[in-house]
Amino acid sequence: MSDAEDFEAAVAAVREEIDPSPAERERMESVADELRERAERAIAALPVDADVLQVGSTARGTWISGDRDVDVFVRFPTDLDREELEEYGLEVGHSVLPEGHEEYAEHPYVKGSVDGFDVDLVPCYDVDDAAAIRSAVDRTPFHTEYVAERLDDDLAADVRLAKQFLTGIGAYGSDLRTRGFSGYLTELLVLEYGGFRELVEAAAEWHPPVELDPEGHAAETFDDPLVVIDPTDPGRNVAAVLSAENVARLQHYARDLLDDPREELFFPDEPDRFSPDDVEAAIDDRETTPVAIRFAAPDVVEDQLYPQLARSLDGVAEDLDRRGFDVMRSTAFADERAVLLAELGVAERPTIERHEGPPVHVRDHATGFYEKYADDPDAYGPFIEDGRYVVEREREFHTAAAFLHSDRLLDVRLGTHVESALEDDYDVLVGEEIAALAEEFGVELARYFDPEP
Amino acid sequence: MSDAEDFEAAVAAVREEIDPSPAERERMESVADELRERAERAIAALPVDADVLQVGSTARGTWISGDRDVDVFVRFPTDLDREELEEYGLEVGHSVLPEGHEEYAEHPYVKGSVDGFDVDLVPCYDVDDAAAIRSAVDRTPFHTEYVAERLDDDLAADVRLAKQFLTGIGAYGSDLRTRGFSGYLTELLVLEYGGFRELVEAAAEWHPPVELDPEGHAAETFDDPLVVIDPTDPGRNVAAVLSAENVARLQHYARDLLDDPREELFFPDEPDRFSPDDVEAAIDDRETTPVAIRFAAPDVVEDQLYPQLARSLDGVAEDLDRRGFDVMRSTAFADERAVLLAELGVAERPTIERHEGPPVHVRDHATGFYEKYADDPDAYGPFIEDGRYVVEREREFHTAAAFLHSDRLLDVRLGTHVESALEDDYDVLVGEEIAALAEEFGVELARYFDPEP
Repeated sequence: MSDAEDFEAAVAAVREEIDPSPAERERMESVADELRERAERAIAALPVDADVLQVGSTARGTWISGDRDVDVFVRFPTDLDREELEEYGLEVGHSVLPEGHEEYAEHPYVKGSVDGFDVDLVPCYDVDDAAAIRSAVDRTPFHTEYVAERLDDDLAADVRLAKQFLTGIGAYGSDLRTRGFSGYLTELLVLEYGGFRELVEAAAEWHPPVELDPEGHAAETFDDPLVVIDPTDPGRNVAAVLSAENVARLQHYARDLLDDPREELFFPDEPDRFSPDDVEAAIDDRETTPVAIRFAAPDVVEDQLYPQLARSLDGVAEDLDRRGFDVMRSTAFADERAVLLAELGVAERPTIERHEGPPVHVRDHATGFYEKYADDPDAYGPFIEDGRYVVEREREFHTAAAFLHSDRLLDVRLGTHVESALEDDYDVLVGEEIAALAEEFGVELARYFDPEP
Repeated sequence: MSDAEDFEAAVAAVREEIDPSPAERERMESVADELRERAERAIAALPVDADVLQVGSTARGTWISGDRDVDVFVRFPTDLDREELEEYGLEVGHSVLPEGHEEYAEHPYVKGSVDGFDVDLVPCYDVDDAAAIRSAVDRTPFHTEYVAERLDDDLAADVRLAKQFLTGIGAYGSDLRTRGFSGYLTELLVLEYGGFRELVEAAAEWHPPVELDPEGHAAETFDDPLVVIDPTDPGRNVAAVLSAENVARLQHYARDLLDDPREELFFPDEPDRFSPDDVEAAIDDRETTPVAIRFAAPDVVEDQLYPQLARSLDGVAEDLDRRGFDVMRSTAFADERAVLLAELGVAERPTIERHEGPPVHVRDHATGFYEKYADDPDAYGPFIEDGRYVVEREREFHTAAAFLHSDRLLDVRLGTHVESALEDDYDVLVGEEIAALAEEFGVELARYFDPEP
């Protein structure tokens, strides 16, 4: 087979698995119709007018077989104040989904289940254009309209392929844990390049920053690896949360897929959990000094938790580096408990540390520095190197563990809720002690110790 | 006493010790006269004309009591070729110093002893001005003339103080081991500032680069911490070999002298030799990992040896740093044997080292890197961080000693003669083994472990 035939064969096999069957489509459409009717009846009982829209991938024909999410928006006039909107929105929600419960995103909304589908019933404002939104959900109808008008059945099928491929490589989802490609971003990329294969071929050659502006109306510049100006809002980069890592990941696997087209790249592959013994064997082989801080995971949503863990991990890793323990790699896990793990290339440091003072010619500073250390019985020097005073003074912490056990850990730049959790309580695990993490985080540890792009 | 009185009291005590007595002066002058007469007689027997000049500090009145160096130059016409100059020069030399022996600097010359004085009899060319010299010695008569014309007895006495002070703080001498202040540079500085105290007060406030141009005729710019344009040659910085360290050292001790004037600053203070036990105690206290390479000192003059040792030490220290052993301080010693000593903050490194590859978007390089490591059973990764491939590969050396024992040591940037010596043979000493160096380098080790500005 030619390369192109290999590619089409792999893709055809994937399509088999992800394209909704006619029966599945029909079920979904009948549920959507039913929901719309219920919503319209509920609106008729309100003192204001509103319209009902189905949004999201089920509305755009880009949903993947097995997806069960149906998003229904109720769009109210902009002269309603926020409290009224919320009140009427919930009224319609409870009427449409009598068994549903309230959740809270930008507004409170009702979530429920109808014939096996997960339904969100969300109120929004009927703004004139996407640049005039009052809250993020107001933008969604514009996205749905833009995409639905332009995607034919073939392109919609290619969007499904693209989403499935991004899922397979771990780069799908604009939540702040993944920082990957959103559904809308995937749709715009397939539209821009004209198909899945065309997107993959383009991504394999990207030189970030890559800037796309489908409507040619960009009103701002962005400092992101991928910039896709929202066709419905010239001031917004649809790829704003996408990490450089996920851009590179798409590039890597795009080349891999073109080079050796195969179905398995489309389906995420969960590694075998690491047992405590596996962790010990890995540490033994690597000879590094892993250290971990373990604490009760802060009770906040994932979109708050993961950025805070990332920020805290950076803070801890920077401090460990500054103190001479050379962080080789680090990562954070969260479940019931949260873990900040740093793997060190230096287990122990000597008594002394070098401390460079000012250039000798900066008289006041230099004299102050000299006098501070000249009579310190624990310091060697000051002496002069390259025109500066240098002293070898006593080091604060000889091991990373001593630092992590100390109060100084709380001086590190930490996420707010992580800081509170650490103030409350935490464990420090050192070396083979981190094998104990395998019980809660065996899969994460397997990924950590056998890393892939 | 006032500060000024303290200063004058200290200085007066120093003058007592360093000013030559009238009897000493007379002896020196009678030797100089005798040498001149002998040289003139020898010249009379030559087929060319030449004149005789006394140069150096004894000619300028800036010599310190006890100095025994008398430099006599024989100045030949420029129409002599080099071979004739050397032949006639040696003929005069042997005639003046019948017991003398030949040495070689820019030209061969004769060195001998007369009435307890060490005499150099050196041939040079009678060039029109110092910018037209054929070899460095041709410049000396211009320096002597310039300084002798301008230094009165008081200033000459202050030059002696300045030289003695620079000697006391270890910054006197333009040899390439010291990289300090030459006699001529010291004379120019005392002339420029108008006295010893004035020089000290100025130096305490210097903000390098400091640029002095006594004749206002600079014809070039220099990238040195102190620039003193030669009054006899607009294209030359008299302070070219002076290190930033010695500039800073003068600044430090100038402030110290002004702050607490005392005689001891003028006289170098040799520390008590370190015994092997002292070295062990120091390492024990510091908890560092010292490593040393010891080899037969190359048989070259000090002005070749020390720059080569410095270059080799830099090369070794850079490589140790690059390999993750964190050189905290390093130094070189030389006597019969030479030693490159580096004190490490990291004793041991794990199996793996981080190795960053190219950004994933640089397709050819990135693919090459990925393919190189993807099938390496000893490597972890490649994985992606910040848009780059990163791999954890097997580290070449886990300890500094393993590296120093290996052939890779010879790949380091080394001085030529040091490289030959290492090719021949060397020892590696690690940790407390360096105590064995105390026998040959006890004073140097005392200075190293009790460093001063």
